Amino acid sequence: MKENYIRMAHGAGGRMMNELIRTLFVPPLDNEYLRQMADAARIQIADLGAHIAISTDSFVIRPLFFPGGNIGSLAVHGTVNDLAMSGARPLWLTASFILEEGLDIETLERVVRAMAEAAHEAGVQIVAGDTKVVERGHGDGIYINTTGFGVVPDGIVIGPERIRPGDIVLLSGSVGDHGIAVLSQREGLAFETELLSDSAPLNGLVEALLAAAPHTHCLRDPTRGGLAAALNELAGAACVGIEIEEAAVPVRPAVAAACEMLGFDPLTVANEGKLVAFVPPEEADEALAALRSHPLGQEAVRIGFATEEHPGLVLARTHIGGRRVVDMPTGELLPRIC
Amino acid sequence: MKENYIRMAHGAGGRMMNELIRTLFVPPLDNEYLRQMADAARIQIADLGAHIAISTDSFVIRPLFFPGGNIGSLAVHGTVNDLAMSGARPLWLTASFILEEGLDIETLERVVRAMAEAAHEAGVQIVAGDTKVVERGHGDGIYINTTGFGVVPDGIVIGPERIRPGDIVLLSGSVGDHGIAVLSQREGLAFETELLSDSAPLNGLVEALLAAAPHTHCLRDPTRGGLAAALNELAGAACVGIEIEEAAVPVRPAVAAACEMLGFDPLTVANEGKLVAFVPPEEADEALAALRSHPLGQEAVRIGFATEEHPGLVLARTHIGGRRVVDMPTGELLPRIC
Repeated sequence: MKENYIRMAHGAGGRMMNELIRTLFVPPLDNEYLRQMADAARIQIADLGAHIAISTDSFVIRPLFFPGGNIGSLAVHGTVNDLAMSGARPLWLTASFILEEGLDIETLERVVRAMAEAAHEAGVQIVAGDTKVVERGHGDGIYINTTGFGVVPDGIVIGPERIRPGDIVLLSGSVGDHGIAVLSQREGLAFETELLSDSAPLNGLVEALLAAAPHTHCLRDPTRGGLAAALNELAGAACVGIEIEEAAVPVRPAVAAACEMLGFDPLTVANEGKLVAFVPPEEADEALAALRSHPLGQEAVRIGFATEEHPGLVLARTHIGGRRVVDMPTGELLPRIC
Repeated sequence: MKENYIRMAHGAGGRMMNELIRTLFVPPLDNEYLRQMADAARIQIADLGAHIAISTDSFVIRPLFFPGGNIGSLAVHGTVNDLAMSGARPLWLTASFILEEGLDIETLERVVRAMAEAAHEAGVQIVAGDTKVVERGHGDGIYINTTGFGVVPDGIVIGPERIRPGDIVLLSGSVGDHGIAVLSQREGLAFETELLSDSAPLNGLVEALLAAAPHTHCLRDPTRGGLAAALNELAGAACVGIEIEEAAVPVRPAVAAACEMLGFDPLTVANEGKLVAFVPPEEADEALAALRSHPLGQEAVRIGFATEEHPGLVLARTHIGGRRVVDMPTGELLPRIC
């Protein structure tokens, strides 16, 4: 059924969002860069021989402050990570604010300071900005767009089209921390141990990984729609099957408990400081060791592999030995999680 | 008095917005690029010898469709123009959407098609995108961020710091068309002749200008806050005085009549397809001829000059021969005009 109106699910990172992008945005705007369907567009600057990466993201997370971060730090991490996933060294960000009339200025100050700190930590500069104000009831405090620009080192070519059957799939740590931390803040859920968002800049981790495994084929940070959406997108784009070991995917007890209670699959919950890497088998051990040697990848694990069987499909070996299809998430999931 | 809350005027392009940017955003984020306070940041890519320009803008215009354009075409023109004002050749744009739940999809389709057409006309590609959805009552149909990247041709150095006393100030056509066209749509004002927004991509006009007057010192498109805000910003940044001939500034009869009725100064009303150029006197005739030879600059005029007297101040010779201070606009003016 063709939808006539925008629904929350159109922004949730799952099937409906994908369809909206494929049917409504891409056809009129079509060009070779959009067709890459990557986290960042990879562009060759004519005459310079350099490849640059460009990525954009708007942040509408609710609430503005959550355990482990806020909209400001998240807006920097999100775009730094999208650039890093293309193999680029993130260099410059722009920041554009849509403020709601009546926002208290101290809140804005805290958010801008958090952006400055996050940018400093990630080694990027915020080089241009914009501020708009909308009337009360037409915004929600602060929305931020960050757009990032980086340079791809010579010889690095990373993208879904490079994935090959036999590639090993690595995951840099536990899944679902961001989504559940934000949800707990929003809904007032309490956990026995404090659960923090994993929001973090992944460019240092990627640098360590690529130094050890320079032939890494593809990187992706599983944000909206979680690991399930990321793997499904890549299986589709690369036209391979992906098989993962469900028991190998690290899930913190608090996340597992919250998902159990709320009926969520942890594989569909958003992350903001994790990556999956597709690495040729001969570099997989070095890649895993490099991830584990970095503070943000200490819990990195091998979760599966790409296969020429069942192209486009993601299968998980379950705890009890069966296989289930890991579907592209549908519906609303967790709205406004980033 | 220090403000505690965001007000509509903080987004209106005048004194309050300037102060917010200078006091709240720039200090924590400080770097050499932000300090340029230009329409686009000009950045040297190390090792490549190339200068790139980066600019960002979020569009929250109300209503989404107005005489002469819509939020989609405007979002392309606005960022293309900011890049062009730095002397850059605009090449790539990103587009990020914040959609309100319940938006009808046909409206979105019309806007995206308009973006595609505007991008095609301006010769730029939209290379990356993002879509977020917020609940009803937390948006206003469609907000769009566009961020643009361009390459500055060798030898072109354009910026407020290059303005010199004696520079001739050129204006590419009539002022206030965009602001009054949008306002008329919003408020249901009727004019005897239809008034259209001047929204247009200025990169072609800039190219023609720079071919004829390669030593052009500074360019600025007078958007929010109009010609008055643009000239005041430049007088302050360049530490020069600016003197203009009020009678020389073209104002269409419908705009003049609407301003008279509403108590606006046409110099403070937004434009989206006009530029002011600061040109050394020896290239002024060629510059003016080049502007006039382009379809978007047919009504270009010489409106004044920069002077070492009264630095930071903009003065206008009035119709009756006196001089008045053209102040930085304060207060709300026309909210959500772009």
